[in-house]
Amino acid sequence: MTTHSLLILPGDGIGPEVMVEVRKVIGWFQSNRGIAFDVSEDLVGGAAYDKYGKPLADETMAKAQSVDAVLLGAVGGPAYDNLDFSVKPERGLLRLRKEMDLYANLRPAQCFDALADFSSLKREVVAGLDILIVRELTSGIYFGEPRGIHSDDNNPENEGGRVGINTQRYTSGEIRRVARAAFELAKKRGNRVCSMEKANVMESGILWREEVQWVHDNEYPEVELSHMYADNGAMQLVRRPNQFDVIVTDNLFGDILSDAAAMLTGSLGMLPSASLGAPMANGRPKALYEPVHGSAPDIAGQGKANPIACILSFAMALRYSFNLLAEADLLEKAVEKVLADGVRTADLMGAEGGTPVSTAEMGDKIVAAL
Amino acid sequence: MTTHSLLILPGDGIGPEVMVEVRKVIGWFQSNRGIAFDVSEDLVGGAAYDKYGKPLADETMAKAQSVDAVLLGAVGGPAYDNLDFSVKPERGLLRLRKEMDLYANLRPAQCFDALADFSSLKREVVAGLDILIVRELTSGIYFGEPRGIHSDDNNPENEGGRVGINTQRYTSGEIRRVARAAFELAKKRGNRVCSMEKANVMESGILWREEVQWVHDNEYPEVELSHMYADNGAMQLVRRPNQFDVIVTDNLFGDILSDAAAMLTGSLGMLPSASLGAPMANGRPKALYEPVHGSAPDIAGQGKANPIACILSFAMALRYSFNLLAEADLLEKAVEKVLADGVRTADLMGAEGGTPVSTAEMGDKIVAAL
Ligand SMILES: CC(C)[C@H](C(=O)O)[C@@H](O)C(=O)O
Ligand SMILES: CC(C)[C@H](C(=O)O)[C@@H](O)C(=O)O
Repeated sequence: MTTHSLLILPGDGIGPEVMVEVRKVIGWFQSNRGIAFDVSEDLVGGAAYDKYGKPLADETMAKAQSVDAVLLGAVGGPAYDNLDFSVKPERGLLRLRKEMDLYANLRPAQCFDALADFSSLKREVVAGLDILIVRELTSGIYFGEPRGIHSDDNNPENEGGRVGINTQRYTSGEIRRVARAAFELAKKRGNRVCSMEKANVMESGILWREEVQWVHDNEYPEVELSHMYADNGAMQLVRRPNQFDVIVTDNLFGDILSDAAAMLTGSLGMLPSASLGAPMANGRPKALYEPVHGSAPDIAGQGKANPIACILSFAMALRYSFNLLAEADLLEKAVEKVLADGVRTADLMGAEGGTPVSTAEMGDKIVAAL
Repeated sequence: MTTHSLLILPGDGIGPEVMVEVRKVIGWFQSNRGIAFDVSEDLVGGAAYDKYGKPLADETMAKAQSVDAVLLGAVGGPAYDNLDFSVKPERGLLRLRKEMDLYANLRPAQCFDALADFSSLKREVVAGLDILIVRELTSGIYFGEPRGIHSDDNNPENEGGRVGINTQRYTSGEIRRVARAAFELAKKRGNRVCSMEKANVMESGILWREEVQWVHDNEYPEVELSHMYADNGAMQLVRRPNQFDVIVTDNLFGDILSDAAAMLTGSLGMLPSASLGAPMANGRPKALYEPVHGSAPDIAGQGKANPIACILSFAMALRYSFNLLAEADLLEKAVEKVLADGVRTADLMGAEGGTPVSTAEMGDKIVAAL
């Protein structure tokens, strides 16, 4: 029997709390379906810094490279705001993304009908919304050299005497591989890809546009491709988000646009994500799964967090990394059922009121619905 | 009597159409109030490229440097999509911004009550919304060197063999001056500034945060300052936009976030903007005014465009560049009156229907209401 290896990195803030609920789900599959998971757990982010003095230990990095999938909670928080840049919690996550070469970050913005009213947008604008943002995750301005803060003391015109630099650098190959990921995903969905950049003001945006077009023309002519400037993209996401199927964009634009898109749905506590790399020996991609939401320090430790985004991230792992398709379906259906039954964590409470369940209660209900 | 010099650059798409209506307003002030405007007109963007082979002629640039204010329509359009980067329509606008050193771009996101229902957001989320985004406009990744697309043929790992580069480079002085503009504006409004960057992943973002904080602590301790990561900023703009008063951010984030914010209001065809630089001999800042909307090639030439954003941009010029405060008020009131009377261009027509007025009719009504 196959053993599925999973590395759990709960991280900071609400990360550990929501991960406890995922553990319950894993336990259920082990006991009731006899599926063998080899689960290990380690630290990332501020939690790793507190223990190891850095946001990701080398041992943890090596472990992440050797498992079938990594499931991460969240990183960061105000307690770590004044740390030196090189040891910030976020650097742990960036190291995982970079060294595992997880170049395609899949961020669905999906509106769950029962929750459409939580959106600040009108119901008719968001109901049924189902966008997939594919964000390039291992290059661009997050990683380019040169970078840093330097003294500029010799420049008398520069009050303050410093200069801060980051470099956006994309190779054609980096653009092509994430474009392919987007086209492949579009084929299984609405068959449409919209690529976003600022080709009108940035040369790296021109390269982006040309290479995405090249992949389309040479390999995916049957998929509908359009291009949009990223500022217009932000507008259109607000105005009429359901015009989109798959959006492919770079690391920085993807960060901003996917957060805006996720918030549109009113379902932020519900949205999972997957970061995928090249296929491993087992034919499945290197993968890291994590909720779209952050570490939410304001509610951490209070049992208020919604564990669904993290549980659905595990469902994505079942599907994409462990090839346990029936189990992924089962888990997603259980989540739907619990929501249909009206079970709500605090983030899902509307103006009508009612009593929210705790993080643990939500996890229990989902396990009970399996 | 003072003569107020104004350079009009209609540009591309709907730019020329909306500018015709501004001309009517200027004519009214000249005839009925005896105000002396010295108006000249020239080309920018694609229109300039068509005539001069470049998107801004040197003579036009010199003229822009010598007038009290510049009023620009819009630049760009699909007809120019395949032009070489160096002569793209947008480069004309960027040259104006850069050489006039217009470092503070003021982009209001204001919801006109009569139009709140045009927003895709719920009325209660956007009604009364009044945010001012102050975007740094002369530096950052739009202008940093090195930049360009280069061959990377010697790198066998790079499929496609090219690399695209842009550089984000901010000096402390550049950050401080735009921060000061934001704090000054906040003092006349809600006294709150929120600064947005990605200090968790970009060193230029760390410098941004530190310098804005420095200006606050040393010069504006009485203004409330907060910091937010730009991705969270995008989320919060969608979730609860009225939490903001003044937002200050860099050139690229400002581009994306201000477009999203403008679209929130449902009033895109209504929003003016001002780009301000250092004070001139007359004590007033170098300034370029333009509508927030773009060249809207899809409706250009059809008499459908809403001229209000451009007319209100002229009202901003009356106020900030010509010091004609009563006249600015008068013009803004005329716009309000016409809207209250139910006059609507096509972009302002709701589901209830009705007959839209043309660009020219809207201009005429506003002049009649003066
Ligand atoms: C935590 C941070 C490094 C990260 C990013 O900016 O990529 C986060 O915002 C995200 O979108 O996953
Ligand atoms: C036209 C383009 C160069 C410009 C920009 O990106 O700055 C526009 O989008 C804007 O926001 O004024």
